[in-house]
Amino acid sequence: MSRHSPFDPAALAAEIFDAVREMSRDAEGVSRPAFSPLETEVLDYLAAFGARHGLVVTEDAGRNRVFCRPEHAAAESWTLIGSHVDSVPMGGNFDGLAGVVAGLLVLIGGADRLARPVKLLAMRGEESAWFGSCYLGSKMLTGTMTATDLAAGHKGDNRPLRDHLADLGIDTEAVAAGRPLCDLGPIRAYLELHIEQGPLLVEKAIPAAVVTGIRGNFRYRAIRCIGEGGHSGAVPRAYRHDPVLAMADLLSRLDETWRRILITGGDLVLTSGVIGTDATRHAIARIPDEVAFSLDIRSQSAQTLTEMQLYLAEEMADIARARGVRFETGPRVDSAPAMMDAEITEGLMAAMARRGIEPFAMASGGGHDAAVFAQAGIPAGMVFVRNRNGSHNPHEAMELDDFLIATSILAAYLEE
Amino acid sequence: MSRHSPFDPAALAAEIFDAVREMSRDAEGVSRPAFSPLETEVLDYLAAFGARHGLVVTEDAGRNRVFCRPEHAAAESWTLIGSHVDSVPMGGNFDGLAGVVAGLLVLIGGADRLARPVKLLAMRGEESAWFGSCYLGSKMLTGTMTATDLAAGHKGDNRPLRDHLADLGIDTEAVAAGRPLCDLGPIRAYLELHIEQGPLLVEKAIPAAVVTGIRGNFRYRAIRCIGEGGHSGAVPRAYRHDPVLAMADLLSRLDETWRRILITGGDLVLTSGVIGTDATRHAIARIPDEVAFSLDIRSQSAQTLTEMQLYLAEEMADIARARGVRFETGPRVDSAPAMMDAEITEGLMAAMARRGIEPFAMASGGGHDAAVFAQAGIPAGMVFVRNRNGSHNPHEAMELDDFLIATSILAAYLEE
Repeated sequence: MSRHSPFDPAALAAEIFDAVREMSRDAEGVSRPAFSPLETEVLDYLAAFGARHGLVVTEDAGRNRVFCRPEHAAAESWTLIGSHVDSVPMGGNFDGLAGVVAGLLVLIGGADRLARPVKLLAMRGEESAWFGSCYLGSKMLTGTMTATDLAAGHKGDNRPLRDHLADLGIDTEAVAAGRPLCDLGPIRAYLELHIEQGPLLVEKAIPAAVVTGIRGNFRYRAIRCIGEGGHSGAVPRAYRHDPVLAMADLLSRLDETWRRILITGGDLVLTSGVIGTDATRHAIARIPDEVAFSLDIRSQSAQTLTEMQLYLAEEMADIARARGVRFETGPRVDSAPAMMDAEITEGLMAAMARRGIEPFAMASGGGHDAAVFAQAGIPAGMVFVRNRNGSHNPHEAMELDDFLIATSILAAYLEE
Repeated sequence: MSRHSPFDPAALAAEIFDAVREMSRDAEGVSRPAFSPLETEVLDYLAAFGARHGLVVTEDAGRNRVFCRPEHAAAESWTLIGSHVDSVPMGGNFDGLAGVVAGLLVLIGGADRLARPVKLLAMRGEESAWFGSCYLGSKMLTGTMTATDLAAGHKGDNRPLRDHLADLGIDTEAVAAGRPLCDLGPIRAYLELHIEQGPLLVEKAIPAAVVTGIRGNFRYRAIRCIGEGGHSGAVPRAYRHDPVLAMADLLSRLDETWRRILITGGDLVLTSGVIGTDATRHAIARIPDEVAFSLDIRSQSAQTLTEMQLYLAEEMADIARARGVRFETGPRVDSAPAMMDAEITEGLMAAMARRGIEPFAMASGGGHDAAVFAQAGIPAGMVFVRNRNGSHNPHEAMELDDFLIATSILAAYLEE
């Protein structure tokens, strides 16, 4: 297909999705490791695809690829569409890649229609599965990568991220010094399209949504509740210090508070994903002496997160007092929420309406590179595509029609 | 020491406890496997000790030892004091053995004072640690051993119980046919002294107690609560089917109901000793799709147990409906409660008062051979001795003074 063929976004999208899926097939789903040769190969394929369709393609200091129409190659400022090409191990094909393909379609189909210069940034290294933390590509660009990030070992070969970056010729001294690898000045706004990672759009039968903000979170990897072991039959309730019932009490209180926060219009999700008594000591006929459980609490509102931290501490203290147990939380890991820019969000909602879809806005529970750009002070906006079965698994299922609708919202916004 | 020395119960008790501890020392605590050569060795030692102190010692068809004073050797009926000599692996020295030593002291010290004939039965095989179920010795005597019991493999060599019994010359055909190995007719009553396996007497500063009944129980090894996995940040509360919060809800409801049952005078203990999400699938940032937890619910009252089964089923159904999860309980294992004989309990309380101790009665949370005899229709009674740190561990700590007080209650009752 040449740059002069009629623009057929469905065919173009299918071509890219199929080709990249074939390049990155794993035992189940696809695997595109962050900062790997395969990731480079995918970027090379995309660059060649873009060039074939008349786009100018360059490489930035983070070894990402930047695409634009020839008439915008010398622009002084631009709106940046960004997304990542890496995936989790045995993940789905659309998480990240869909945003890049959307950007390509906007550029390729945008001849003479884009109101202002637009560039597409196809990034490396967003998924935390490979080096333990996320947004690595965008953190380098914005100068916010930490020493911990750089020293983190790769899931497979255990070599530090620093070495993997050096292999790609990235200036790790600049990264370590916190110098942005990219000049943020000309970026007027940052836009990202992503599959929804939850079930809301499927449940509500809506093909796409505008994202209001990316939830921040605080997490505890393993809160230990320590009580006192004993014979399951022989210790009366008044003398028990049962850590499992104490944990159940805490989780039930958190659940009820969650319900109340939602009723009053707040934004919150709350998960204890990993819980267990100690397999080396537990028994059916023994009161356990200890249980451990993780907590992951997210909100778009920094204030709600702070309030939940205080509430959690109060409830743990209350339960510890009432039940004679002890909570040892271990370190708390925080990630600040990132609000999308109100003006961009409104613009995207209006574009959605112009496309004949009832405007719908929602929070993003998962993190995205858009959060990094927003925290760097760049007005950001996001569009979600309806997607079945969540993300980070081979069963994610975005319909091409929904993807084209969501892409057309981006295009309509940029053509305004 | 000969049969004509002055009776010094503290010295005799210390002599036996020390000798048997030495015979059965393990890396930690003591190990006296059920139906093992070491168990036979301990019975031989006790038989020799009894004989040295003027008792007549015989062996029954279960290869247990029966002790009595010479004047009662030809009695037509008797009160039976019973206890077991086996222990759990790396357990404490007093669980089981204390009851045998108490019986020896009652007989040796009882010259001319016992109101009626008394025999002591030193039994094998009470602990479930070796072949998976408990009361094996007393079940054979009463003809209630099951085919499952006989086929169960030994914890160490995995040979079935049937073979271990045959090694001892026990008639496994009779056992398999459910024929009692012992003539229960002449047994007027069954008495047992045991260390308390909970903290009640320590907490209440009481040296001994009369037992009102042995709690029955029902147990589920692993109730699965099955929900729906998902991204911890991306699934709103309304679309969650979180099995961990469902389990927490259930355990909190059970805990509250437990509290209410106690307030209204009921007897109940409730434990979830083993819980966990699936280590091969769980993650901090994922809503788990499943959690498993054990339940062990005990009461002296069969009616309370039945009510709790119904209540549990109702609450699971209610939570399943409200939260869109599913509970799969797996098989329920039941053990019926055994009430001690009211007349014997009153007699033991009166004996306690005669010894100058404020009478105190309590339920037994752990199971004991007394339950088997009670269920065989023999009026039964039990006395508990204060004991620190529970049982089935090397740290159990019964004071000899408390043991002598509890033994003197038995003696006072039998001398009445």
